[in-house]
Amino acid sequence: MPTDLPTDLPTHLPTELRIASPDLAAVAAADELQGRLTKPAGSMGRLEAIGARLAGMYAVCPPPIPEPAVVAVFAGDHGVHVHGVSPWPQEVTVQMVANVATGGAVVSALARQVGASVLVVDVGVAGALPQGLDVLALRVVDGTADATAGPALTREQAIAAIDAGRRVAAHCVDEGARLLVTGDLGIANTTASAALVAAFTGADPGAVTGPGAGSDARTLARKIAVVRACLDLHRPDPADPVGVLAAVGGAEHAAIAGFVLEATARRVPVLLDGVIACAAALAAAALDGGVTTYLLAGHRSTEPGASAALAALGLEPLLDLGLRLGEGSGAVLAVPIVQAAARLLREVATFESAGVSGRTDE
Amino acid sequence: MPTDLPTDLPTHLPTELRIASPDLAAVAAADELQGRLTKPAGSMGRLEAIGARLAGMYAVCPPPIPEPAVVAVFAGDHGVHVHGVSPWPQEVTVQMVANVATGGAVVSALARQVGASVLVVDVGVAGALPQGLDVLALRVVDGTADATAGPALTREQAIAAIDAGRRVAAHCVDEGARLLVTGDLGIANTTASAALVAAFTGADPGAVTGPGAGSDARTLARKIAVVRACLDLHRPDPADPVGVLAAVGGAEHAAIAGFVLEATARRVPVLLDGVIACAAALAAAALDGGVTTYLLAGHRSTEPGASAALAALGLEPLLDLGLRLGEGSGAVLAVPIVQAAARLLREVATFESAGVSGRTDE
Repeated sequence: MPTDLPTDLPTHLPTELRIASPDLAAVAAADELQGRLTKPAGSMGRLEAIGARLAGMYAVCPPPIPEPAVVAVFAGDHGVHVHGVSPWPQEVTVQMVANVATGGAVVSALARQVGASVLVVDVGVAGALPQGLDVLALRVVDGTADATAGPALTREQAIAAIDAGRRVAAHCVDEGARLLVTGDLGIANTTASAALVAAFTGADPGAVTGPGAGSDARTLARKIAVVRACLDLHRPDPADPVGVLAAVGGAEHAAIAGFVLEATARRVPVLLDGVIACAAALAAAALDGGVTTYLLAGHRSTEPGASAALAALGLEPLLDLGLRLGEGSGAVLAVPIVQAAARLLREVATFESAGVSGRTDE
Repeated sequence: MPTDLPTDLPTHLPTELRIASPDLAAVAAADELQGRLTKPAGSMGRLEAIGARLAGMYAVCPPPIPEPAVVAVFAGDHGVHVHGVSPWPQEVTVQMVANVATGGAVVSALARQVGASVLVVDVGVAGALPQGLDVLALRVVDGTADATAGPALTREQAIAAIDAGRRVAAHCVDEGARLLVTGDLGIANTTASAALVAAFTGADPGAVTGPGAGSDARTLARKIAVVRACLDLHRPDPADPVGVLAAVGGAEHAAIAGFVLEATARRVPVLLDGVIACAAALAAAALDGGVTTYLLAGHRSTEPGASAALAALGLEPLLDLGLRLGEGSGAVLAVPIVQAAARLLREVATFESAGVSGRTDE
């Protein structure tokens, strides 16, 4: 797994990125090709639409198969943890970073299943990591500050985290990745995600805050109160996405936003995981609405904030399996579906090439 | 791809098969293990339930990863085609058999995506196949008869087709397959499937007959009328599943029923595709209700008969992507999800082994 980051990456802000519109000629060519492949028109349902979208993203028909896929697991801690918003101790973030880095986590097993590689990125973990771990060290803060008392991050830290995410995406694409997958780790990260979703969508905290990694009713009530307190304190302005990320977000949210922006600027699709990724994608889309062209939603997390964010982004998830783990797990499971959508356009015979008769009524 | 069938397979009837109940100790062990893996309890949603079911099927915890996976594509033609129930000419069945056998079909591309192999079985195609195709020749009839005028198959033909399907499953399992996937090919096969679903579930033909491979409203109305005529003529008795298959089914339905029965008797899970497979599974379940222990539903086809059959079988599909192609395509797409469910139980570290702290509230 590559851990050397190139040193010559651009460091300018996301607003300076150029994100291209989908190549509509490639989309049209994919739609036309779908009609000639040996299957009834439309019979592959959403895979046909995804195949056409991929053609538009890569600006070529047929699109390449989106492989290799790399899942970048951005890890960070959250100051709001002090309010008892999670039943898990904060030390679990460090322990799970080590677990992913050594291949023992759920996302590790799923990545092996689908042939994806995993890159762990420390962008804002609070505690010290064990020596010698295969982790990209791009930490911008030792865990965020308590957003009920002040901004979670300074504006400079938020920008640095965005930049870290951009550097990771640039690195992966430079190394050949044609599909980037978002992952995340961090105790209390669903609380910060709910605050971001509420800030960007205008939804009430009670509607977008969920039990995360297993909160009971009392803990959930505390989470909602914390999210509400964060929003009441900062009144974040969705027209200032960096300000929103700094006020109530996490370093991993900012990094994922940067990861999304850089990937899309390079015409590489990004497959989103659950509520952390969806919250970060809202920030990316607020910075440049063009990113949604390149976004695919891996699954519908049971966290309510994920569905609210997906609706706001106009994305329909590929899977709905009752998952709520994070780490990138649900997105990784969807990788073969995305790859299959492109593969059909590349490998299925046409009626003409296979000598298959057409319909008698057309 | 293996094309030699062993000659010493049992030929007795399905009712003599012994299908074991799930191993409840293995299921309980899987549930207990899920709680120790490094993830919040329940956070992998339906994958946790599937993992436990797989442990029960294979009677061991952790279960093996269900690989290699083999998709058997059973091909047959249908006498009801003469009534204009499909916009496609019957010759397309032969042409698509050749397309699958030479790797150009959708199921071929999807199987490559997920690392499954494809076996094409001629169990009831009407026309002559090209010489030299890599197809298992187990034809029991040159297409069924018109079920609106008499039985589609003789009882002996139906039994021979069940036996053919059993031999294919036995062969695949003998060769090492640990996951069997149903596939199908045959113009007008959704009409016969609708008749089977109506016969086994008691549903009205209008509620379980769909547009299949692209029927317009007039053709769909004809299909419903043909299904109704078949049922009115034969009044098939669901307590005599072989009789139902013979009266209104197809050779591929009988073969898939046999394939399901033999696989389950060998404790190998079967991943079902769309309405053809679901209709055949109703027949298998009517022959021995124990098969449902070993069935997994790959996806929710847009054909209404598929949903009716899945409900009757008590199965919840893994994918819902608007697919209606058949060939096994939707089931093949779900293969990595099934494999992932077992892989998690085998490969994810436990809290103890990874040194990850537990919740503070338990």
